[in-house]
Amino acid sequence: MSPKFAVEVRVMPRRALLDPQGQAVEHALDALGFKGVGGVRVGKALTLELERPDSGQAEDDARSMCERLLANPVTEDFTLSVRPVE
Amino acid sequence: MSPKFAVEVRVMPRRALLDPQGQAVEHALDALGFKGVGGVRVGKALTLELERPDSGQAEDDARSMCERLLANPVTEDFTLSVRPVE
Repeated sequence: MSPKFAVEVRVMPRRALLDPQGQAVEHALDALGFKGVGGVRVGKALTLELERPDSGQAEDDARSMCERLLANPVTEDFTLSVRPVE
Repeated sequence: MSPKFAVEVRVMPRRALLDPQGQAVEHALDALGFKGVGGVRVGKALTLELERPDSGQAEDDARSMCERLLANPVTEDFTLSVRPVE
């Protein structure tokens, strides 16, 4: 059986695009009295476990999952982290 | 003017709860041919900037934002990171 890797993915709207959900959160924080807050952006966080022979293959496949399913290549950027599970 | 801190928040459904969105992603990955994938969970990622006198106050306020608005205390857990912006 291949070892397991814990993958964490963060998918965020691109900097150049408006983020209406982020703006809504920013207004709600202001209404709750939180001042000095700016640049709120809201995206997705995903965690999963991947059985692969080594961390290189785990990272390659995780990147491929982002490109094919998890992130929209036109509107979103993603970052990845992969670490072995005990 | 207070220094700025970059805050990253991750809000995830609690371990004990079903995560239908995570299950849907898991099935979709399988259908795309990604095998050996398990435990997919989908949550929210937020980034924002906070003007505060020091990192302690930035972290305290970011935690308070999570407790009051960003995370549902019954169904979600959150993690925070705070770092100074140049």
